[in-house]
Amino acid sequence: MTAKDFAQHNFEGAWHSFEPGKWSQDEVDVRDFIQRNYTPYEGDGAFLAPATEATKKLWEIVMEYSKKERERGGVYDADTSIVSTVASHKAGYFDQSLEKIVGLQTDMPFKRSLQPFGGIRMAEEALEMYGYHIDPEVKYIFTHYRKTHNDGVYDAYTPEMRRARSAHILTGLPDTYGRGRIVGDYRRVALYGVDYLIQKREEDKSRIDGDMTPDRIRDREEVAEQVKALKALKAMAAEYGFDISRPAENAQEAIQWLYFGYLAAVKDQNGAAMSIGRNSTFLDIYIERDLREGKLTEEEAQELVDHFVMKLRVVKFMRIREYNELFSGDPTWVTESIGGMGVDGRTLVTKNSFRILHTLKNLGPAPEPNLTVLWSRRLPEGFKRFCAEVSIETSAIQYESDDLMRPEMGDDYCIACCVSSMRVGKDMQFFGARANLAKCLLYAINGGKDELMKDKKTGKPMQVSPEYAPILGDGALDFSEVMRKYEQMMEWLARLYVNTLNLIHYMHDKYCYEALEMALHDVQVRRFFATGIAGLSCAADSLSAIKYAKVYPVRNEEGIVTDFTIEGDYPKYGNNDDRADELAVWIVKTFMNKIKSCYTYRGSVPTMSILTITSNVVYGKKTGNTPDGRRAGEPLAPGANPMHGRDSHGALASLESVAKLPYDYARDGISNTFSVTPQSLGKDED
Amino acid sequence: MTAKDFAQHNFEGAWHSFEPGKWSQDEVDVRDFIQRNYTPYEGDGAFLAPATEATKKLWEIVMEYSKKERERGGVYDADTSIVSTVASHKAGYFDQSLEKIVGLQTDMPFKRSLQPFGGIRMAEEALEMYGYHIDPEVKYIFTHYRKTHNDGVYDAYTPEMRRARSAHILTGLPDTYGRGRIVGDYRRVALYGVDYLIQKREEDKSRIDGDMTPDRIRDREEVAEQVKALKALKAMAAEYGFDISRPAENAQEAIQWLYFGYLAAVKDQNGAAMSIGRNSTFLDIYIERDLREGKLTEEEAQELVDHFVMKLRVVKFMRIREYNELFSGDPTWVTESIGGMGVDGRTLVTKNSFRILHTLKNLGPAPEPNLTVLWSRRLPEGFKRFCAEVSIETSAIQYESDDLMRPEMGDDYCIACCVSSMRVGKDMQFFGARANLAKCLLYAINGGKDELMKDKKTGKPMQVSPEYAPILGDGALDFSEVMRKYEQMMEWLARLYVNTLNLIHYMHDKYCYEALEMALHDVQVRRFFATGIAGLSCAADSLSAIKYAKVYPVRNEEGIVTDFTIEGDYPKYGNNDDRADELAVWIVKTFMNKIKSCYTYRGSVPTMSILTITSNVVYGKKTGNTPDGRRAGEPLAPGANPMHGRDSHGALASLESVAKLPYDYARDGISNTFSVTPQSLGKDED
Repeated sequence: MTAKDFAQHNFEGAWHSFEPGKWSQDEVDVRDFIQRNYTPYEGDGAFLAPATEATKKLWEIVMEYSKKERERGGVYDADTSIVSTVASHKAGYFDQSLEKIVGLQTDMPFKRSLQPFGGIRMAEEALEMYGYHIDPEVKYIFTHYRKTHNDGVYDAYTPEMRRARSAHILTGLPDTYGRGRIVGDYRRVALYGVDYLIQKREEDKSRIDGDMTPDRIRDREEVAEQVKALKALKAMAAEYGFDISRPAENAQEAIQWLYFGYLAAVKDQNGAAMSIGRNSTFLDIYIERDLREGKLTEEEAQELVDHFVMKLRVVKFMRIREYNELFSGDPTWVTESIGGMGVDGRTLVTKNSFRILHTLKNLGPAPEPNLTVLWSRRLPEGFKRFCAEVSIETSAIQYESDDLMRPEMGDDYCIACCVSSMRVGKDMQFFGARANLAKCLLYAINGGKDELMKDKKTGKPMQVSPEYAPILGDGALDFSEVMRKYEQMMEWLARLYVNTLNLIHYMHDKYCYEALEMALHDVQVRRFFATGIAGLSCAADSLSAIKYAKVYPVRNEEGIVTDFTIEGDYPKYGNNDDRADELAVWIVKTFMNKIKSCYTYRGSVPTMSILTITSNVVYGKKTGNTPDGRRAGEPLAPGANPMHGRDSHGALASLESVAKLPYDYARDGISNTFSVTPQSLGKDED
Repeated sequence: MTAKDFAQHNFEGAWHSFEPGKWSQDEVDVRDFIQRNYTPYEGDGAFLAPATEATKKLWEIVMEYSKKERERGGVYDADTSIVSTVASHKAGYFDQSLEKIVGLQTDMPFKRSLQPFGGIRMAEEALEMYGYHIDPEVKYIFTHYRKTHNDGVYDAYTPEMRRARSAHILTGLPDTYGRGRIVGDYRRVALYGVDYLIQKREEDKSRIDGDMTPDRIRDREEVAEQVKALKALKAMAAEYGFDISRPAENAQEAIQWLYFGYLAAVKDQNGAAMSIGRNSTFLDIYIERDLREGKLTEEEAQELVDHFVMKLRVVKFMRIREYNELFSGDPTWVTESIGGMGVDGRTLVTKNSFRILHTLKNLGPAPEPNLTVLWSRRLPEGFKRFCAEVSIETSAIQYESDDLMRPEMGDDYCIACCVSSMRVGKDMQFFGARANLAKCLLYAINGGKDELMKDKKTGKPMQVSPEYAPILGDGALDFSEVMRKYEQMMEWLARLYVNTLNLIHYMHDKYCYEALEMALHDVQVRRFFATGIAGLSCAADSLSAIKYAKVYPVRNEEGIVTDFTIEGDYPKYGNNDDRADELAVWIVKTFMNKIKSCYTYRGSVPTMSILTITSNVVYGKKTGNTPDGRRAGEPLAPGANPMHGRDSHGALASLESVAKLPYDYARDGISNTFSVTPQSLGKDED
């Protein structure tokens, strides 16, 4: 079928009453479709419908499984022999007669899938943790015939990388788990149907031509794998009785098609964050059309959204203890980005933005999907108030500044995981975990010898970096010497960090490629090379202490500085005091500049995040006493937060300090964990 | 153990009485060992011993299997479920009590191994051909979890590559079979033992450091795979009761260790040519020492060599009909390079050069191993005469010009397959099959439309190249126009050919990497990018006809030139007539220069061969009528041979024509199939 025939056919069916445009003229362009067809909503939440009986019954069934899962120690059931791929399983249901949106990761509710492509040992360990045993046949295959991401990484790691990893100056590297953070444009499945996407991808492939360099060969092979994944997606949907080769024809199909795309992604990948994108306003277009044509009531619309969200709530992976410790549980980060403003000035809030938040009331609060409002000062008042109400009632909404991100990202980006913004279907991210800059400062002082770890062979302090000159003597630390050595150590760390990530992402592409997710991107994507830092406020305060107070090193019998004596006071980050805040800014800029000077895999664009939600606790455990007075093992502050309790000048001053951090140097996002109590806002609700 | 300790230890044992040198001072350098320790032999073959009783008995057993193999239609037995890897099988024997050198590809004599990494369909098809059925489990694994070389190639092929392949202008591409042609330095196993090789490889790996580019990551991973392969090699030998972690201590061990290295290679790879290198003079050093020390008699020495050669004679692979057609059988090309001269002027002929040729008498003639004498005018007279005798008696010796290759390759190169020279352990080759330059000339005339193939969709002549302007009209072909168009078509063909090979070798490295063979090379190898041409003499004669006679095109109803009328005579290549010979030289130089201008994979050095031994018959079948008068479907001449019967000016003139082809432009070798009858030499033997 030609592009024109295809459009003609659909305007007589699936696309009827839609405004045509670039999106319908042989270009895959979901944003154009949204812009031409969505209905901004400036009202309030009065139109919303409560949960239907079917929703309540279904949710009870889900809750019953959830209860049994807890009773069984955290895992209800687990697959030990069927390797999860897009089309690996038979259809599964909670109760087929009740479910308006169908599709499970395996053939049974709450049965976790077996995903060994990232690493067979992790898959096995995760099963063993819960008393399951992997099929020996599968283990044999994945140790003898099929190499995994994890095996590839460890084959290529240098001794220095291994040291930095075990000393936890590099932390949480995605070498034992799927990198995640890649968000397919699942809306494409609904809008175009899979056959058209396959056809377009074949056309894309024909354009990858010229000298057959390794890059070009890899690109051609990847596209071939993407086409296979799309065909598997069709097969998976067919298992549930749906033909998604064609575009969705109504709201129910649109949600179902879109969800099938996402389901295929989570069957294919056990990624650290499997976010879903920015879908509610897109889906609103289908719902509005059905409402307009009398094919759907508000109750039915809400039911579809409730059932969709229920499915997102039960996304589960088998994960190892190490992972759960790092992330404090096993979050799936099914982040859905909601609202925001269009670059033309219209709000992107629709009735469906309300509906999806309303699931927090209809089904009760839940951390997943991670409903994230893209906040703008100019959001409609009704929506703002509704968000505030739901937040107060459920504490389950995340907010991100649309005003900050829109200038760079436009108005069709989404959040992957918790802060990473990416244009849907146009950007992807190589996730990079974190470098511990508080520990890096200790390395600068000790010439790269770890303050906690011993070399297993010699029993002496582990030399992690090359033998840089340590700071000698027992006099007060000299600020300029510390800064010089810190910058040098940052340079070493940045290069090692980037090289470690280069290697990890090469192997992930080689052994655990996200074919289905990438099939739902443009063929030429922008790749972000995401790095992250931990321990920012601890490092900034430490530098401030060295500069403004007197800090004396305390050495152990081996001469390693393991503690510090502080004479006098010093300004602390988090009090809107430039003396300290500028040091934090210096750290961010300096480290990011070092990162930028490195070679990055696949021409990716380096970005940085200042982001930990909970893992700062683990990182703190592995970091010795710091010059700011923090004791060894104590948590670092999360993300860009000031150190706990040191922001003594009020909420506003604390926020002002964080706001000084330059977004241009931390485009992957800056997190600030901030509990708002009535007192900190100045007056009560009533 | 330090390098010094290692050497000290071995000079007290395995290396006793050997002259030390660079080879024993922490460098892997087998040539240095040979140069310092070998004993050139200038005598005749009078010292040689006949086959022992054990040899005769054992050979009878082998012959019995061989007979049964023929009776069973060409395959005695085949493995359908155990995937062949270095250490996949239990020990296998003909008769353990008789065998001085042990080791089979599987656990049973003549049982062919299952090698699906190159392509599961080929493995299955080969089994089916002989009435065997692949284990469905293996098939499932290699279609669902483990991708193969063949699958990778077909994922990445462009439509143009597929057309050129199916039109047979590119022929015999190693995309459905293992590329082979890589020769491990199996002598290293004997001289150093495997543990030392592992240690050196780990050191090599530590030096692959710096920015982690994809190339460097791949190199690190490859070395990790090499180390695993060496460990598997030890395990394989242990299965036969040998500890090859240490160096070989006597002649029997040296041959056994070396053979284990080779056996591991053929268990790991089903390559198009699995040559063994240049081993006889190396082994002579061990034999001489044992003879000197009274530990071995000449009879026993010959017995070891006979048993070694027996094992090489029974190397077998499962191959598909297409392969067997292309290569007229299923040759294994276990080429052993013998003799030659050293760059210091001493001959490299030793008594063991005689012994290995003597196997042709003791066991009777056989095509494998492909015993290849590196011929020099300065070879000792006794050896020359012995070679002549054995050749006359067995017709089973191949000769190559050492004098031609030595200036470029030094004195420790070997022949891979039949003509490719490579420095042992220092060079490897990306095998490249052939481009049909006779057909290319027809494409030049027809603007890239195939003279035989139809497009399946349209039923019209298949447009293989871009639509270049064809030659129009019915007048005699204009030589300068033909040359212009031919050169243009060569440029298209060279680029397509190189790109196709780039892609094939990328995938072979990715899915069917020769880890064991590459572990027995230096870590930094020179890679040859081997291309080949077919149809040289046909193309040269065609150009000569167009230039010196009058050639009129004959067109079919579609306007395609499908035949030619020739008026007058023309000079033919193969008669020492410069008019024709210069056209052949022009073709070689021009095509090679086009090849050289292309991007080649992994910085490989482009080389060209003018080489077909038998496949010229198949290529001819796919080539239409040519302007030299050759009829469609008739064979092309093999290699650089003149067209059959056209070299009418005697043997010397024929050889002189071939000798004009510039070796610098065909470094991968030039073959000339030349039957010497008593008449052509001028007088009878007596």
